[in-house]
Amino acid sequence: MADNPYAFAFASDNTAPATPEAMQAIVDANRDAFAPSYGADHYTQRAIAAIRDFFEQPKAEVFFVFSGTAANSLAIAACRQPFESVFCTHEAHIEKDESAAPEFFAQGLKLHLVGDARGDKLELSAMGRILRDNRGMHSAQPRIISLSQCTEFGTCYQPAELLDISSFAKARNLLIHMDGARFANALASTGASPADISWRAGVDVLCLGGTKNGVACSEAVVFFRPELAAGFLNRRKQGGQLLSKMRMLSAPWLGALQNYPNRAAHANQCARVLSQGLQEAGLVLAFPTEANGVFVRLAPALVQHLESRHWHFYKFYQDDVYRFMCAWNTEHAAIDALLADVRSYPHVKN
Amino acid sequence: MADNPYAFAFASDNTAPATPEAMQAIVDANRDAFAPSYGADHYTQRAIAAIRDFFEQPKAEVFFVFSGTAANSLAIAACRQPFESVFCTHEAHIEKDESAAPEFFAQGLKLHLVGDARGDKLELSAMGRILRDNRGMHSAQPRIISLSQCTEFGTCYQPAELLDISSFAKARNLLIHMDGARFANALASTGASPADISWRAGVDVLCLGGTKNGVACSEAVVFFRPELAAGFLNRRKQGGQLLSKMRMLSAPWLGALQNYPNRAAHANQCARVLSQGLQEAGLVLAFPTEANGVFVRLAPALVQHLESRHWHFYKFYQDDVYRFMCAWNTEHAAIDALLADVRSYPHVKN
Amino acid sequence: MADNPYAFAFASDNTAPATPEAMQAIVDANRDAFAPSYGADHYTQRAIAAIRDFFEQPKAEVFFVFSGTAANSLAIAACRQPFESVFCTHEAHIEKDESAAPEFFAQGLKLHLVGDARGDKLELSAMGRILRDNRGMHSAQPRIISLSQCTEFGTCYQPAELLDISSFAKARNLLIHMDGARFANALASTGASPADISWRAGVDVLCLGGTKNGVACSEAVVFFRPELAAGFLNRRKQGGQLLSKMRMLSAPWLGALQNYPNRAAHANQCARVLSQGLQEAGLVLAFPTEANGVFVRLAPALVQHLESRHWHFYKFYQDDVYRFMCAWNTEHAAIDALLADVRSYPHVKN
Amino acid sequence: MADNPYAFAFASDNTAPATPEAMQAIVDANRDAFAPSYGADHYTQRAIAAIRDFFEQPKAEVFFVFSGTAANSLAIAACRQPFESVFCTHEAHIEKDESAAPEFFAQGLKLHLVGDARGDKLELSAMGRILRDNRGMHSAQPRIISLSQCTEFGTCYQPAELLDISSFAKARNLLIHMDGARFANALASTGASPADISWRAGVDVLCLGGTKNGVACSEAVVFFRPELAAGFLNRRKQGGQLLSKMRMLSAPWLGALQNYPNRAAHANQCARVLSQGLQEAGLVLAFPTEANGVFVRLAPALVQHLESRHWHFYKFYQDDVYRFMCAWNTEHAAIDALLADVRSYPHVKN
Repeated sequence: MADNPYAFAFASDNTAPATPEAMQAIVDANRDAFAPSYGADHYTQRAIAAIRDFFEQPKAEVFFVFSGTAANSLAIAACRQPFESVFCTHEAHIEKDESAAPEFFAQGLKLHLVGDARGDKLELSAMGRILRDNRGMHSAQPRIISLSQCTEFGTCYQPAELLDISSFAKARNLLIHMDGARFANALASTGASPADISWRAGVDVLCLGGTKNGVACSEAVVFFRPELAAGFLNRRKQGGQLLSKMRMLSAPWLGALQNYPNRAAHANQCARVLSQGLQEAGLVLAFPTEANGVFVRLAPALVQHLESRHWHFYKFYQDDVYRFMCAWNTEHAAIDALLADVRSYPHVKN
Repeated sequence: MADNPYAFAFASDNTAPATPEAMQAIVDANRDAFAPSYGADHYTQRAIAAIRDFFEQPKAEVFFVFSGTAANSLAIAACRQPFESVFCTHEAHIEKDESAAPEFFAQGLKLHLVGDARGDKLELSAMGRILRDNRGMHSAQPRIISLSQCTEFGTCYQPAELLDISSFAKARNLLIHMDGARFANALASTGASPADISWRAGVDVLCLGGTKNGVACSEAVVFFRPELAAGFLNRRKQGGQLLSKMRMLSAPWLGALQNYPNRAAHANQCARVLSQGLQEAGLVLAFPTEANGVFVRLAPALVQHLESRHWHFYKFYQDDVYRFMCAWNTEHAAIDALLADVRSYPHVKN
Repeated sequence: MADNPYAFAFASDNTAPATPEAMQAIVDANRDAFAPSYGADHYTQRAIAAIRDFFEQPKAEVFFVFSGTAANSLAIAACRQPFESVFCTHEAHIEKDESAAPEFFAQGLKLHLVGDARGDKLELSAMGRILRDNRGMHSAQPRIISLSQCTEFGTCYQPAELLDISSFAKARNLLIHMDGARFANALASTGASPADISWRAGVDVLCLGGTKNGVACSEAVVFFRPELAAGFLNRRKQGGQLLSKMRMLSAPWLGALQNYPNRAAHANQCARVLSQGLQEAGLVLAFPTEANGVFVRLAPALVQHLESRHWHFYKFYQDDVYRFMCAWNTEHAAIDALLADVRSYPHVKN
Repeated sequence: MADNPYAFAFASDNTAPATPEAMQAIVDANRDAFAPSYGADHYTQRAIAAIRDFFEQPKAEVFFVFSGTAANSLAIAACRQPFESVFCTHEAHIEKDESAAPEFFAQGLKLHLVGDARGDKLELSAMGRILRDNRGMHSAQPRIISLSQCTEFGTCYQPAELLDISSFAKARNLLIHMDGARFANALASTGASPADISWRAGVDVLCLGGTKNGVACSEAVVFFRPELAAGFLNRRKQGGQLLSKMRMLSAPWLGALQNYPNRAAHANQCARVLSQGLQEAGLVLAFPTEANGVFVRLAPALVQHLESRHWHFYKFYQDDVYRFMCAWNTEHAAIDALLADVRSYPHVKN
């Protein structure tokens, strides 16, 4: 790694640190000699108010938790009975990357995989088929549509797409859960307002990502239908996600929220530059670069070449689709270094 | 129904009663004024011994439970940790027909669907792909291969097929669970011995079906690797499956076991006659008729015609595949009546 | 055992067989060549109607399950959220004899033990204290009061006692679950009507015992507040308690229901005779004999003496309280034999 | 609150901020532009090594999690089967203050309450009685003894007491879990080495508290028997307790560990001063002041008086036992202010 200071720069948006504004807010909040525990402090109250403002939704119920996996799992558990199930895509984080945490938190949970080929978005017809073939008490009963904004393939749902899903859901009495681990990147990509790609598009509960956008380690579960939040204080505690020194989880949002889409916009812009450069080097994208992830097909020899240069990156799909992630702190020098190493590989045209 | 005495004859093998030999054994066992509770009675001890003999495996651990869903769920739960997952087919009973009971009994369970197109059998290559793409602690960890013998499409695994799966499993430290709700029909179909299509073919735990073969309402969980049965007495009780008057669950096996494959052979033979008749009437099978289920493609008008004649049967797959089940007590007169109604429909050649 | 034909006569009411009327009903129901599965058969529909009549409550929702442990566990699970808890006594079956099945079926369940010394009945003041000391989201939230009728110590709640508990519950928005494994014995003991010691006394859900009163192996979950039964068909299936050949579970109730309290009255009467005899022999009761169980203090030497005569009975409480159970088929000759053996022991006055 | 700057000073050790050394370590770790995710970073590796050194146990397996509730719940879940249960005291945090989280994480869990009157310590005889009365497969099977060091009543187990419990445990094949949320205060109080009151005294898994001792928000699960940690990486992820930016959880331990007992010693010393002052003012302790909590009996009028002076403190036990907690940052001026308010109340002698 000695010869590649950017070795981990594209491994994940999780390798980046907290943003200065988030860290400063933690340091400041920590200056108080005492603060009421468990969320009764004024940092937490102000952070909740700020998130309500951000979504133009004063009735939203907001809860801070430690991890995205917990946010998704608790939100899903809160919206269903044990015999009720969830629609999601084949590559959804709740299906592929959470070690069956939703199934762990929500006793009796089944996920129905109904993704399409356009970039791991939900396919309405597949959901319709499962609902039609339902065998009553013998089948799990679909109750929730879960979608990821951005998707795991770096694409975004446009407001119109969300409204289609929402129409489908409302007609069938289904709830909509949005895994918004990269919601900031979706905001920056679509240019939509927070409300427009959440509750105004029919989302019932949103897991608003902090960690991947530099808000230290904090996620917010935002219920746009307050009645779904009944008992969630208890569920959060029972799920091991209640922090006594809550200001450590809430204060960073105070620092981060004004910059929230801007920090993601930087990551998205870096991804576009990288994406462009990789295509100019002759590589082929697997999915369009709409947010902060670049998904590109790599030949085995090129993979080996990049690994010999100490780059960390992951095969993500099929046999040859690899992922490079940009973050709020990605430097253009890192992009240049990666592209230089790609272009230095003889079989890639430059 | 007044004009069709066989209306429910092909709806399911569950519509049939218990066999006379099973019912007589219950009646006889009930004559004892007192019997020790919870399995300490001599009927239960003898039934366990009879099942061990049946499988030529004196070390097998045998437990009687009430339902196939419970048998599968408890057997799977006993063989894994909360973060470990199960391979099964898209149409497996544990996936499609148990209202997420395995996920309910086994906290944190995920089922990976890896079926093929030949009749809902397991596809080794699909399992291999999931194992290769595993993301360590971020992914559920496959631990069990679950297969149904017969399959939900009325086909059977031949001993050689089982050995292929077993080789795959053993090389990857996976266990094999067999849902044998229709194990008797598989015995009759393959002509193999009980041992040959269970433990000799690598099966670690078998849910041996009684109910669908007329053994009143009783299923047996048979562990061929005794160490997997550690604690299963406790799990059965905790799972609500311990009967105090255990002789009611165990005695019918004493009556049923000698006739076990014969009763299924009758069902299979009826299915062959029905299958032949339907094909001669111009209908097309969706899957070969290897056991007691006939899966045939029906045009909507013919479906309507048969329903007008009060026949009960179910669409089982895709838009036009319907299932007709035979049972230990299916009468040839019922088959004749059904075929007559099929042939009476003008668009079917006869 | 050769010399003691009654060795198991007092071990448990579970050692007795099904009653002739229950067994005959099963045999009769089994004569139908076909019956719709999963409860759509007319036996099940008639048994549900009969139970509604029995309770004079046409809106009751009734579900048959296999075991008392499952009945209790599913009923409790259906009435609560994961962070909600249950009050019961220290000796309640759900606490002491179900291998933590309620905690298994109902994720996150805590039982608060609030029994008194009068025979394991609920103590309102202990419940009040726990409610007062509740620490909000840090504590499990009591939601259900569970009581056993009869209690595990063979005593019965009188209608007035039930109404006291019900007043307490209603004032605090708590539900009442009754474990009625021996409800028949309570009917016979109190002389009250089924309605008077269930819904008219505020019970919301009753697990109506069949097995211990000779109804083969069948229990009925009876919801007196129908809204609590929403989704229970799904929960029963998911809990492994749905029988395909449902008539086997429901038909025996048709035979048994008219004799239901009478069969228990016989058991209660036998217990009174035994209790009287034991006291006349100089032994001391631990609890009054109000139903079919006799709880008596035995010196170690007498225990040894009775065991040498092959009697099966269990230490039930403290160091010296032993239980002798009578059943629907207890013979007076057995009581005489037991009393003779007690009296034959030199240290017992006769 | 305007007139009482110390209003929250004694409400809980959770109202204090992170220590400067913990916060500085987070700030420093956050300076790295990139760090491998999920614990592969060098901060985490060094923190694990430091904890092993702290315990003089190089084979210990160490995992960082967010909250004490999660630490306890996951540790307990990792050590048992669903039918296995836990001994703890009536006032244990896992019983009283975690909203049934252990029961939520560990399907089927029952806690047996076996505390004594000396300050909520475990009573061996009560455990022995439950083990003797165990009804085999009908009962939950005790597997773990859970104890809190310090106890919830501010007392500490001396090494000799721990060895007694350990002897009891080992003789019965029970594991020992220690809830060490205030382990630092126990170290300071007993003067023992970390090893002496953990693994050398028979503790199998320790939840090492960070948060209450100023280590920001981080707890460490320390398995002294490495085989118990098999699969814990998966369990932590599945339990929603894996942080992607793990350095935020691990780095503070690097800063905090050298000062770990010293910070607690200050809290303990403040508690002694407060305890002494309260007694001199005529109040009566409910439990000896051995660590950082003072438990004192208060008359209702005095409670009202202190509340009128804006002090926050909680009734903790019975009707009149109140808790005052000291922390790493408690100021003597705060103690003086509280004592002045106590003494100013006419009915208290001064």
